[in-house]
Amino acid sequence: MNEDDFVNIGEIMHGLATRLWPINRSLTGNGVRETLNILKETLPDLVIHEVESGTKAFDWIVPNEWNIHSAWITDENGDKVIDFEKNNLHVVGYSEPVDLWLSLEELKKYLYSIPENPSAIPYITSYYSRRWGFCLSHNQLMRLNPGLYHVVINSEIKLGSLTYGELLIQGELEKEVLLSTYICHPSMGNNELSGPVVLNALAQWISSLLDRKYTYRIVFLPETIGSLVYLSRHLDYLKCNVIAGYNITCVGDDKAYSYLPSRNGKTLSDIVAKHVLKHTDPEFKIYTWLDRGSDERQYCAPGVDLPIATISRSLYFKYPEYHTSLDDLKFITPKGLEGGFIALKRAIGCIENNYMPILKTIGEPQLGRRGLYPTLSTKDTIDEVRVMMDFMSYCDGTNNLIEISNLINQPHWIVLPIFSKLLEHNLIEIIDE
Amino acid sequence: MNEDDFVNIGEIMHGLATRLWPINRSLTGNGVRETLNILKETLPDLVIHEVESGTKAFDWIVPNEWNIHSAWITDENGDKVIDFEKNNLHVVGYSEPVDLWLSLEELKKYLYSIPENPSAIPYITSYYSRRWGFCLSHNQLMRLNPGLYHVVINSEIKLGSLTYGELLIQGELEKEVLLSTYICHPSMGNNELSGPVVLNALAQWISSLLDRKYTYRIVFLPETIGSLVYLSRHLDYLKCNVIAGYNITCVGDDKAYSYLPSRNGKTLSDIVAKHVLKHTDPEFKIYTWLDRGSDERQYCAPGVDLPIATISRSLYFKYPEYHTSLDDLKFITPKGLEGGFIALKRAIGCIENNYMPILKTIGEPQLGRRGLYPTLSTKDTIDEVRVMMDFMSYCDGTNNLIEISNLINQPHWIVLPIFSKLLEHNLIEIIDE
Amino acid sequence: MNEDDFVNIGEIMHGLATRLWPINRSLTGNGVRETLNILKETLPDLVIHEVESGTKAFDWIVPNEWNIHSAWITDENGDKVIDFEKNNLHVVGYSEPVDLWLSLEELKKYLYSIPENPSAIPYITSYYSRRWGFCLSHNQLMRLNPGLYHVVINSEIKLGSLTYGELLIQGELEKEVLLSTYICHPSMGNNELSGPVVLNALAQWISSLLDRKYTYRIVFLPETIGSLVYLSRHLDYLKCNVIAGYNITCVGDDKAYSYLPSRNGKTLSDIVAKHVLKHTDPEFKIYTWLDRGSDERQYCAPGVDLPIATISRSLYFKYPEYHTSLDDLKFITPKGLEGGFIALKRAIGCIENNYMPILKTIGEPQLGRRGLYPTLSTKDTIDEVRVMMDFMSYCDGTNNLIEISNLINQPHWIVLPIFSKLLEHNLIEIIDE
Repeated sequence: MNEDDFVNIGEIMHGLATRLWPINRSLTGNGVRETLNILKETLPDLVIHEVESGTKAFDWIVPNEWNIHSAWITDENGDKVIDFEKNNLHVVGYSEPVDLWLSLEELKKYLYSIPENPSAIPYITSYYSRRWGFCLSHNQLMRLNPGLYHVVINSEIKLGSLTYGELLIQGELEKEVLLSTYICHPSMGNNELSGPVVLNALAQWISSLLDRKYTYRIVFLPETIGSLVYLSRHLDYLKCNVIAGYNITCVGDDKAYSYLPSRNGKTLSDIVAKHVLKHTDPEFKIYTWLDRGSDERQYCAPGVDLPIATISRSLYFKYPEYHTSLDDLKFITPKGLEGGFIALKRAIGCIENNYMPILKTIGEPQLGRRGLYPTLSTKDTIDEVRVMMDFMSYCDGTNNLIEISNLINQPHWIVLPIFSKLLEHNLIEIIDE
Repeated sequence: MNEDDFVNIGEIMHGLATRLWPINRSLTGNGVRETLNILKETLPDLVIHEVESGTKAFDWIVPNEWNIHSAWITDENGDKVIDFEKNNLHVVGYSEPVDLWLSLEELKKYLYSIPENPSAIPYITSYYSRRWGFCLSHNQLMRLNPGLYHVVINSEIKLGSLTYGELLIQGELEKEVLLSTYICHPSMGNNELSGPVVLNALAQWISSLLDRKYTYRIVFLPETIGSLVYLSRHLDYLKCNVIAGYNITCVGDDKAYSYLPSRNGKTLSDIVAKHVLKHTDPEFKIYTWLDRGSDERQYCAPGVDLPIATISRSLYFKYPEYHTSLDDLKFITPKGLEGGFIALKRAIGCIENNYMPILKTIGEPQLGRRGLYPTLSTKDTIDEVRVMMDFMSYCDGTNNLIEISNLINQPHWIVLPIFSKLLEHNLIEIIDE
Repeated sequence: MNEDDFVNIGEIMHGLATRLWPINRSLTGNGVRETLNILKETLPDLVIHEVESGTKAFDWIVPNEWNIHSAWITDENGDKVIDFEKNNLHVVGYSEPVDLWLSLEELKKYLYSIPENPSAIPYITSYYSRRWGFCLSHNQLMRLNPGLYHVVINSEIKLGSLTYGELLIQGELEKEVLLSTYICHPSMGNNELSGPVVLNALAQWISSLLDRKYTYRIVFLPETIGSLVYLSRHLDYLKCNVIAGYNITCVGDDKAYSYLPSRNGKTLSDIVAKHVLKHTDPEFKIYTWLDRGSDERQYCAPGVDLPIATISRSLYFKYPEYHTSLDDLKFITPKGLEGGFIALKRAIGCIENNYMPILKTIGEPQLGRRGLYPTLSTKDTIDEVRVMMDFMSYCDGTNNLIEISNLINQPHWIVLPIFSKLLEHNLIEIIDE
C-alpha cells in the first residue's frame, strides 16, 4: 500500500463523517454505541467495551448514562421555535428531563447563545451537575417574542455504562504505538468527527501492512473520563510498553497544521511530529503544553507520562468555529482530512522505520565503481548523490534515521529509499540501538 | 505583614536617605559610624564592628582611617570659591591635609571637573595613594579668574579602623540568605543611599515575619575592602551556608530595572532575580558579569563563589548621573525606592517559599466536585482555573515552585496562593528536595 | 618571530603561487612531483612518498598514473584552435591519448563549456572512467566553424604511483596538530595554489618557533584518494594523537573569511576557528558540515573522526570563479593570502598557548600596589585594566585561555600578553588540565 492507494481517501473519510454526523454522541449513551458500530464495519476486530456507571477511575467516577429522545420549545401558538431534531447542539449535554411552561424572561435563564458570534449555536454540557438548558444562535434568541413557552426535554440520566472501542493490531514487538481519539461530541466536524474518521483510515492502513515492527493500540473513547477509565485499567502495561503515540483530534480542516507537545516535549512522538510537520508544511504552528486541551492532559499527567503528542490541523480553542455549530461538514474538507491522514501516516512511517545505520567502510566509499556517482566530475550539483553522501556521512552508529534526516534537513520519506539502496549495495548495516 | 502595610514605605525610605545625605562617608571614618548608628535606630540588633588599620584581608590591607573637618579654596579677596561644607563631593576622597597658596595655573593640577557634563561635580577618590584635590563643576572651573588661591584641607589620615554593620536574623535553618550593601560614598543617592535605606526596610520586614525558613545575614560595609574584610573573617562558614543572596545597590531611581548575574549565572539568586524582574518589569535590562562593578566582584571571585546576584534599578556606570553630584535626592524617588524594595521582597518571597509539590492523584483530579471548577462547560476561558490546572500539570515531584512558575509563565506571587489552596484540598503534598 | 616579520609574506606567497602556476598537477603524475620539489626548497625536511598504482586504501584503489605531454585541436587549415600549452584546463583530467579527425558535430560531444559563464574555461576530470575531452570557454566554442578538426592528446595512463609530501615538526609532546592541503589541480589559484603556498609559509613559521608544545604533521597530498591513502597508512596513530588540525584550502582571495566545521562541530579546532575568525572578521561566514567538499570528508568520516575543521576565505562551491579558469593569479592576492596565513597562524597560536590559569588570591588581588591599577579612581573606563580584571575573574581553574577569551569577548592574542604579565606578577599560576 502506498500513497497512490489513498487517492480517494479524503472523500471516503468525509463520507464517513457525513454518515456519523447526525448521531447524538455524549460522554455516554446510545450515540456512542451507534458510532462505534459504524466504525466496526471497516475495523472488524474493534472490541466495544462497557464500563458501569459508578466505576472509579483514579479521582473520577463514571457518571450515569444519558440518553435523549427528543426536545423542543414551542411558543403559545404551538410553533416549535427550537427543535433538537434540527440540530443536536440545541440541548445542553446531559440535560435532565423537563416539561414546563415558562415566560420568556424565565426561559432566558436556560438559554445559551454567543452574542459576538450571532449565527452560531454554542456547544455546552453539564456532565457532573444536574441542569437543563437549550443552546441557540443569538439571532434566534433575538427573534423570540415575549410570551409563554412550552419547554420539553425527553431525556433520561440513570445507571448504565460508558462505552469505548479498542483495537489491537499485533506487531513483531510487544512495544506499542498508542493512537487515541474521542467520540463524545454531538454534530461537530473538526473537533469531533475528523478524529474518528482519520483514525479509522489509519487503522485500516496499519492493518494492511505486511510487516509491522510495533504493536498498535487504537482507542476510540469519550474525552477525559474515557481516557481516565482506560488508563485506570491498563496503566502499568502502557507505561512499560508504549514507545510513542498521538492523540488524534482536529485533523479535518485545511487551514493549518499544528503541533502540540507532550508534557515532556522531547519524546519520540514529539521529535517525529516536528520532523513530519516541518517537511509537510513549513508554516505549521507550534503550540506549547500550556495550550493543551484534550486527552494528552491525562496521558501526560504526572504519574502517567506516556509519550503522547498531538498532530492537528486547526487546533481546538484556536479557531472561531470551535465548539459551535459552525464547526460543521463544510469546515472539514476531503483535502483537509487527507492532509491530517498523510501527516499521521508519515509519523507512523518514521516510527516504524527508524533504523540505526553504520557505514561499513572507513572514509567515504567509492560510489563511482558501484554506479552511484557520475564518472565525470563537473561543477553541477548532483542533488540525489549529495543527499546520499550527506546521509552516509552521519552513519556512524550514533544517529538513527530520524536524527540523520534532521541533520541533513531532508524528510524521512526521502531518506528511507536512499537508506534501502545503500543497504542493498552492502555499504551500510543496521545495528541494534 | 503584606504589601498593603508598605504603602508609605517609599516616603519612609526617602526620608531616611534625606537624613543620611549630608554625612561624609568614605572607606573609613566617623561618617560610616554615624550612618550605622542611624540605621541601628530601626535595627536594634545591628552589631557595629571595628577592624584595625593594617589588618590583612587576603591580598589587601585595611587602610588608615580618614577624617575630614573642613576644606575650602579662597581667592585673593578671601572669598570662598569652593567649600566642602556646601557639597562633600568637592574634596577628593582620602585627601591629605594641605594649606597652600597657589596660582590658578598651579591649582588646576589639583582640580577635577567633567567638561562634557559641565554642571556636575565628579566624585573622585584616592584611597591607596597619598594625594589631595578638589572636584568642581566645569562651569565653576571656567569662572575661576587668574590669580592666587588659598587652599585648605583640614583632614587626617592615621591609624584607626574600618567600620561595618552586621545583623543576623535567625531562621528555622542554618542555611542563609546574604544581603549586602555598601556605605562608603559621600552624598550620592542611587549609588549609595538607596542601598542602605532599602536594606534597612527589608531587614525590618524580614524581622517581622512570623516564621522564616532561612537565616538572614545582613551587612552594611564599605565597598571592596569591606566585603574582603568580611569574607576573610567568615569565608568557610559562608561557603557552607549561603544558599542565595543579593548585593543591594542602585535601587532608588524609577527609570529602569536591572539584573546583573553572579559569575556563575545559574545560581538560585540568578533564577529568582530573573523571574521576579520579568514579572515586575518585562522591559528590565539584563547585564552580564562583564558589567559588574560592586561587591559581587568579591562575593563571586574565584575561590569565593557565593551565589550573589544583583537586582538594581539604573545600574552603576549605566546612567549619566553616576558618580557625580547629579546622583542626588531628586534622582532617587519614593516610587523608585519602593520599586527596589518590592522587587527584593518578592525575591526573598520566592526563596523562602520554594516548595516541591507532587500531585496526589493519577491523571487530573476532578476539580468540579471540590468546587474548584465551573460545573457548566462553556467556551469561555476561565483564567484562574487554567492557572491552577497548568500548575498541577507540573506537580510531578521534579519541579519546585519557581520552576513551575517559570514553566507556566506566572509570577511566584500568583502561584503561591494557588499552591496553598491545593494543599488545603489535599490534592498535592510537599516532598523533600 | 612576530607578525612584523611577515610584512612581505603575502608577496612571497603570491610569488611562489606564480611559480607553481603553469605546472599541470593531477591526482598523480610528474606535475605533483615537480610541485613538491619546489615546496621542498623552503621545507628541506619534506619527505616525498610514492604509493604504487593498485594499492588499496580502504574502499578505494590508487589509480594508474596519468601524464600528459601535449594536446591540441587544429582546424582544416592546420591552425590550432585549442592548445593545452596555453592553459592546462583545456584538457579533461586523466584524458586517454587520442589522434582523430572529427567533424565539428562529432567533436562537440567531447567539448565542455559553461554557457552561463561564457568567458570561463571549466575544470573537468574523469579519474576513474576512461574518457577524453577538451574544455573551452563558451565564447571559444561559439567561434568554431563547421568543418573537420584534428584532435591530438599525447598522454599516457599506466602503472606508476601516487605522490605526496609529508613533514613532521617535532614538539615537546607526541600529541599532534595535523595541517593538510591538496596538490592535484592544474592552474587554479584559490582552489589549489593558495593551500600549498600558505601551508608552506606556516610550516616555515612553525619550524622557526623556539619551543613548540605540540608536534606538527604537515601533508601535501592529492584530494580524496591522497587523504584516504594517508589515513589508511596512519589511522590508528592519528586517532590517538591528533588533538586539532585544519584542512587548508581556498585561503587566497580577499573577499571573505569562512569557517566550515568538522563533522563533530565541537572539537578544539572548531572552537579555535570560530574564535579566531570572530575577532579577525566579524562578518565571517559560517558554513555547515553539509557544505563540506574537501578532505574533511575523509578526516571526519565515520570511523575516522579526526578533529579537523576548515578556515578559508571564499569557500569552494561558493564563488562563481570556482573550478574555472577565472580562479586565477588575479583572483588570489598578496593581501588575501596574507589574511589566510594570519588566521591560521592565530589559530595555531591559540592551540599552542591554551593554558589553564588559576588565581592565587582569594577575592580580587590589589592591583594598585603592583602598579597595575591607576591610583586615582575616576569615572573613565580603563580598558586594559578592565580586560585584566575580567580575565582574572575567570581564572578559577576551570577555564582555559580560549574559554576565558570567549567569556570576556577578547581575542586570544590580546589576552595572552595579559596572562603573561599576571604570571610575572605571581598573581596566577598554571594548572594541569
